[in-house]
Amino acid sequence: MIGGGPDAFIGAIHRIAANLDGKYDLVCGAFSSSASKSKEMGLQLGLNPNRVYASYQEMIDQESKLPANERVQVISIVTPNHLHFDPAKQALENGFHVIVDKPITFSLAEALSLKAILKISNKRLLLTHTYTGYPMVKEAKEQIAAGNLGKIRKVYVEYPQGWLSKEITNKQADWRTDPKKSGIAGAMGDIGTHAFNLAEYVSGLTITKLCADINTVVPGRKLDDDGAVLLKFNNGASGVLMASQIAAGEENNVKIRVYGEKGGLQWQQCDANTLLLNYLDQPAQIFRTGTAYVGSYAQENSRTPAGHPEGYLEAFANLYRNFANCILADLNNEKPTKEALDYPGVEEGISGMRFIDTVIASGESEVKWLNIESEHENN
Amino acid sequence: MIGGGPDAFIGAIHRIAANLDGKYDLVCGAFSSSASKSKEMGLQLGLNPNRVYASYQEMIDQESKLPANERVQVISIVTPNHLHFDPAKQALENGFHVIVDKPITFSLAEALSLKAILKISNKRLLLTHTYTGYPMVKEAKEQIAAGNLGKIRKVYVEYPQGWLSKEITNKQADWRTDPKKSGIAGAMGDIGTHAFNLAEYVSGLTITKLCADINTVVPGRKLDDDGAVLLKFNNGASGVLMASQIAAGEENNVKIRVYGEKGGLQWQQCDANTLLLNYLDQPAQIFRTGTAYVGSYAQENSRTPAGHPEGYLEAFANLYRNFANCILADLNNEKPTKEALDYPGVEEGISGMRFIDTVIASGESEVKWLNIESEHENN
Amino acid sequence: MIGGGPDAFIGAIHRIAANLDGKYDLVCGAFSSSASKSKEMGLQLGLNPNRVYASYQEMIDQESKLPANERVQVISIVTPNHLHFDPAKQALENGFHVIVDKPITFSLAEALSLKAILKISNKRLLLTHTYTGYPMVKEAKEQIAAGNLGKIRKVYVEYPQGWLSKEITNKQADWRTDPKKSGIAGAMGDIGTHAFNLAEYVSGLTITKLCADINTVVPGRKLDDDGAVLLKFNNGASGVLMASQIAAGEENNVKIRVYGEKGGLQWQQCDANTLLLNYLDQPAQIFRTGTAYVGSYAQENSRTPAGHPEGYLEAFANLYRNFANCILADLNNEKPTKEALDYPGVEEGISGMRFIDTVIASGESEVKWLNIESEHENN
Amino acid sequence: MIGGGPDAFIGAIHRIAANLDGKYDLVCGAFSSSASKSKEMGLQLGLNPNRVYASYQEMIDQESKLPANERVQVISIVTPNHLHFDPAKQALENGFHVIVDKPITFSLAEALSLKAILKISNKRLLLTHTYTGYPMVKEAKEQIAAGNLGKIRKVYVEYPQGWLSKEITNKQADWRTDPKKSGIAGAMGDIGTHAFNLAEYVSGLTITKLCADINTVVPGRKLDDDGAVLLKFNNGASGVLMASQIAAGEENNVKIRVYGEKGGLQWQQCDANTLLLNYLDQPAQIFRTGTAYVGSYAQENSRTPAGHPEGYLEAFANLYRNFANCILADLNNEKPTKEALDYPGVEEGISGMRFIDTVIASGESEVKWLNIESEHENN
Repeated sequence: MIGGGPDAFIGAIHRIAANLDGKYDLVCGAFSSSASKSKEMGLQLGLNPNRVYASYQEMIDQESKLPANERVQVISIVTPNHLHFDPAKQALENGFHVIVDKPITFSLAEALSLKAILKISNKRLLLTHTYTGYPMVKEAKEQIAAGNLGKIRKVYVEYPQGWLSKEITNKQADWRTDPKKSGIAGAMGDIGTHAFNLAEYVSGLTITKLCADINTVVPGRKLDDDGAVLLKFNNGASGVLMASQIAAGEENNVKIRVYGEKGGLQWQQCDANTLLLNYLDQPAQIFRTGTAYVGSYAQENSRTPAGHPEGYLEAFANLYRNFANCILADLNNEKPTKEALDYPGVEEGISGMRFIDTVIASGESEVKWLNIESEHENN
Repeated sequence: MIGGGPDAFIGAIHRIAANLDGKYDLVCGAFSSSASKSKEMGLQLGLNPNRVYASYQEMIDQESKLPANERVQVISIVTPNHLHFDPAKQALENGFHVIVDKPITFSLAEALSLKAILKISNKRLLLTHTYTGYPMVKEAKEQIAAGNLGKIRKVYVEYPQGWLSKEITNKQADWRTDPKKSGIAGAMGDIGTHAFNLAEYVSGLTITKLCADINTVVPGRKLDDDGAVLLKFNNGASGVLMASQIAAGEENNVKIRVYGEKGGLQWQQCDANTLLLNYLDQPAQIFRTGTAYVGSYAQENSRTPAGHPEGYLEAFANLYRNFANCILADLNNEKPTKEALDYPGVEEGISGMRFIDTVIASGESEVKWLNIESEHENN
Repeated sequence: MIGGGPDAFIGAIHRIAANLDGKYDLVCGAFSSSASKSKEMGLQLGLNPNRVYASYQEMIDQESKLPANERVQVISIVTPNHLHFDPAKQALENGFHVIVDKPITFSLAEALSLKAILKISNKRLLLTHTYTGYPMVKEAKEQIAAGNLGKIRKVYVEYPQGWLSKEITNKQADWRTDPKKSGIAGAMGDIGTHAFNLAEYVSGLTITKLCADINTVVPGRKLDDDGAVLLKFNNGASGVLMASQIAAGEENNVKIRVYGEKGGLQWQQCDANTLLLNYLDQPAQIFRTGTAYVGSYAQENSRTPAGHPEGYLEAFANLYRNFANCILADLNNEKPTKEALDYPGVEEGISGMRFIDTVIASGESEVKWLNIESEHENN
Repeated sequence: MIGGGPDAFIGAIHRIAANLDGKYDLVCGAFSSSASKSKEMGLQLGLNPNRVYASYQEMIDQESKLPANERVQVISIVTPNHLHFDPAKQALENGFHVIVDKPITFSLAEALSLKAILKISNKRLLLTHTYTGYPMVKEAKEQIAAGNLGKIRKVYVEYPQGWLSKEITNKQADWRTDPKKSGIAGAMGDIGTHAFNLAEYVSGLTITKLCADINTVVPGRKLDDDGAVLLKFNNGASGVLMASQIAAGEENNVKIRVYGEKGGLQWQQCDANTLLLNYLDQPAQIFRTGTAYVGSYAQENSRTPAGHPEGYLEAFANLYRNFANCILADLNNEKPTKEALDYPGVEEGISGMRFIDTVIASGESEVKWLNIESEHENN
């Protein structure tokens, strides 16, 4: 693990996600840019002190020298955005699989570069868009892919938070509101990308144009803390994306609604084990995690009988587990299952960076619609 | 009553709303443009056949000739939009109070004209923006006006319906999708105006600019059936308005969320007797209709003890009752209570027509933001 | 109307219920045992002063003398329990239909006597068990009757209130906690009978035995304010009935859950327009008021499109409307529709009185199960 | 680990719960009464084959011989009920801490015996009553203990399941419905004890008497699959416990409601991160996991920011983590925190066994109330 020191929120989450299914052992780390803090953290986590490093460069360097059956296999990068690219690059170039928190990099250029490096490396990269790890989000995608809603016409996706309603200073808030660490976007990068990814993942569509209202509400803040975006999809559908960190009193209730010709569906994190399907002329149906009637993606991504709620950590653990299962299949020269392969990677990372660039540009533009440059042009 | 013949949905609703509190007696009507259908309806409603008229002109003409203590006092207009202005004008000019369904008229010009006529008439006009009749909507307004959320920063308002997902032909759908009867807007006029009115009413703010994505999704339809609108308010707050009639499977769950510096609130029609207040650092609170702790507006607009749900008809009846109480106070040379005076009228009607004009123009515009011309410029 | 004076809660509710669909005109009343209060109320309601009476005896006497086409047709009795029987008896014996609030009488003996009187009278009697007027309660009954849940095995019904958590003195609380006015039961009579009636109505079964824990929680109170009852049904199913007026913070969320071999259903007043159907191996379904897919009972008992909530007053009005439709059919020598005939009457009243007698006896008994004497033994 | 072989549900859950916070390493196991199945499971779990044992006797025997710093410290017993006591006894007598699934033993006599053994052993025992591991259940207990509801008057607790609605045969169903493996109780032992424990834990009270309706609904089943129980608490409060495995369509929505003089609270597993507090004359409050305003017990038992749901596995992991923290404190000669000490143990196990004995006896009794013999009489 790179990052995830004593005060880090997401590092602890990654460790739980890795532990949960017993597929990973934490064997080494460079937990902080401070060597002493890194040591302290390693001690606290019960690591072999020889494998707690003062820097990620040292870690990659030293681990590369260990025998193949001893050295770390997967490196998880949980640092602020400006410290994603270089450790990921070095890890891949030295033969390690990479797990990296979203957004994938500081800039689109870095993301495109990482894609090239990944291609050469023959390794795997997991981008932790957690919400797509929820079984009922996977069920939503599967229902739509099966045509159960008919052609998709409308997508509403929202991520309202309230925690940046006031000017606050702590490790979490500081780097997220600092353009040097976070990049050109604040809320749009931190949670807007999650909403964007969720909309594309569930609908199976690509967002091609957008029109954004981007706001910095709290005085003195250097990056956006609120935004709303009109969307156009590649099949002609339209949508709305709302992401705010000044929606006072809101927690993390990510929510998506998708409507097609025959019906609509709704999923929200606060009731994560439920997927609601509405139909034009029939009673709505409630699909639930842990039941026998859901599809294979939902089945493979839950652990408990229906009614025992699984939550955010399990969704996160699903990403880790699916990624591990793919690596294990690779090692055994087997083809990973389609359910295991369903994890976000570099393409989702690039889409997210394009979204960030376009949405921030749109926020400053007087022209209504801006195109999101398509991937194809860049290949 | 003008309109509200055998197949009309909203006419029946108006009659129930009028009946509910026993403040109105239905004494005469011109229920249809067909004289025979009007007669039939009057018969069915048990009216004196002499006071069932073949046309609204005849009704206003004949009723005007009756002695003051016999003739109708309030005329309720529940016709399609293109038949709002003329009967309202004639009613006011002949000394009758007017109740008219929204949108107030076919065009902004008519609305402005009606305002002038109303001013001269010394009569009252009620515009039936039903949702502002809900006690918990009134409580929301009162909470915000009292500053309990701090300065308002963000408003989300939505009105998703699915009933026009397919091409359908019935009396309800026909006129609503016919530009000659409905005006320049479909969904935006029918339900977008409700959402717009709700946002301004609850927030106590004025929407000054907007940027709209307006769609006609169902092939062959002549008016918009879907739209999403970015909003700017006069205090600098921003917002999103979503109104759709192709959100398949949705019923009529109008919903509003407002966020201020200190907290946020949420109300939705499917749980109409509940107002949720979220705070930055305290447990959320659930305010409920029929309790002793809500404000005077909510108190005055409910009839049953907490837990016995009141719904759409009661909200509608609140508009009728408050309007009646104002007229009764006028007759007694008393000042109506502030709670009774809290009904929508011609100003809300004009705002709604401006919204329609601007939102449709924005839908066709390549410029991002369009101003909603302010009322003041027109006075 | 008999009763329903200035401070009465339920009288006002009855008047709204009668008004709502325009099937009743309030033409006369004896609103209070105080002649002056009765006059005052009649004045307030805009009645002809000649038909506002000082006592119910006077009212029935005088109205009987009016010509058939002028006199009142239906007498609604909304007095405390000890004043149900005599006015109902006199009304029936003088040729008036009767509407009476529950419980039907002060004692079982009175109820049985009233049944005999009713039989002779050739009139109709409506007992206002409001909750069976809800469209989704009717849908629940219809689903079970159609066998969609299979054989019924378990019924949970509950009526938690908190309003008597403290010793309070007002008109509502006073008579309900006074054995001379309320009868032998407090909470069990006031709300336990509603729960009992709902359980029998929805399940289509008869409760044959019970075992009760009856409590008077608030010191000094003379009647029960809380109870829980184990139930046995005539088909072998079991159940639980919970009714409390000291469930502090609860409003009026009557709720019923019924489970059969194939699935279960749930309805609760706080979400009155929804009926949830759970199945063993399929997604649950949400049935909603105002949709095209619900049965004829639900269809006939709602007025608004899906998503516009109808509540307690509409449920109450359904009882009034169905009763009126039966009377109108009688007048026209037509057979009332099965949907109109589905209103509670004297049989439900007698069952309720048997429940009260048995449940109070059980509360004092050391024997576990007490039989509810079956109707058949008494005929 | 003892038990938890290939088809076992709860064994896998225990392993995840142990993994989640990285406080346990699985080092040895006797996963099945079949030696080959045990080996297979150990292999699957990546254990050292030398420490995968053919029987629990062998495991305890061999592990005892290992050096102190190598041998297992905590033995988790996840076998059917009839195989709880002996392995627990042997583990304790050989110096291992014990984790055991509920109910603690096959019979009350065994439970009392285990208590004596535990006392001598100077070791710790964790009984996995999972639901008391939820942060909001702990918050509920803390709110009541702080007097925020006033004196407790009423408790409703329920555990409805539907999975035994039909006669089914699988490993889960088989032993649970077999008196030789499960004991004298079916549903009452499997889930009734959870409900019982939850009621005592949250209320802080002791249940002293009960009156039960115990049913075996599915033909041919040998143990109860449904029951409802009237309860009396040591402070005079009353309650109802409902536990059913034939509530068709229900999942695992354990729910508790407690009412005091000043208000009531409600928690249910399907919305596990929410605790609802209702008050007599104020708006209800929604307490949420992961917030700053909840008490120390809730704080210490969650891992993610508010709005990221934690569920059943985290609740289970809380038991494991708190138990580990106590053992670690013991090893360091420190006093465990009060939050860590808040885990269920042998006393809760004995209470549960008393409940089972009494509730089954009551089900067969014609006397209404049976006392639950108090602990004090047995010491």
